Amino acid sequence: MNKRELAKRVAEKCGQSQVVSTLVINTFISCILESLEAGEKITIQDFGTLSVKQQKKRERFNLATNKVETYLPYDYIKFTASKSVKIKQKEKSVKKE
Amino acid sequence: MNKRELAKRVAEKCGQSQVVSTLVINTFISCILESLEAGEKITIQDFGTLSVKQQKKRERFNLATNKVETYLPYDYIKFTASKSVKIKQKEKSVKKE
Repeated sequence: MNKRELAKRVAEKCGQSQVVSTLVINTFISCILESLEAGEKITIQDFGTLSVKQQKKRERFNLATNKVETYLPYDYIKFTASKSVKIKQKEKSVKKE
Repeated sequence: MNKRELAKRVAEKCGQSQVVSTLVINTFISCILESLEAGEKITIQDFGTLSVKQQKKRERFNLATNKVETYLPYDYIKFTASKSVKIKQKEKSVKKE
């Protein structure tokens, strides 16, 4: 499912026009990215937490080239689902007790 | 930043009432969770992809108890940021070229 389909479903579900739901969703996402860039952590109750983590500089020995390679540090967005979010994929995981 | 503050900022930014922005955001999140439960992958352009992955059953030797412990499989939500999302944390990482 992509953003357009989601905006359509959201509009139907909450009785707003698709223009309004798309506008709010786009603004919601850009506000999240702005806050992450400012180094803030975003906590969305009953969904999860988004934060920026930094992968440190690392050195790995490359067997193919027999050389030590340096991986520059980089920032990445980490998502941790809330404990209250219990995702039970319908068709895949059958829990055998 | 939490969901209420986000909804307030979104309302200000896109000229909607806080009631409408909160309603659309809550519906957006519940639609995402519903789709994930249905096993769908959510791709939000210029933000990222949310999908459900399964951590397989694992066995670990516990040094403290000297016993092999079994970890049941569980589902978790994986978030992968889009390539176009370049998060540059302002104060933390100073990139030395």
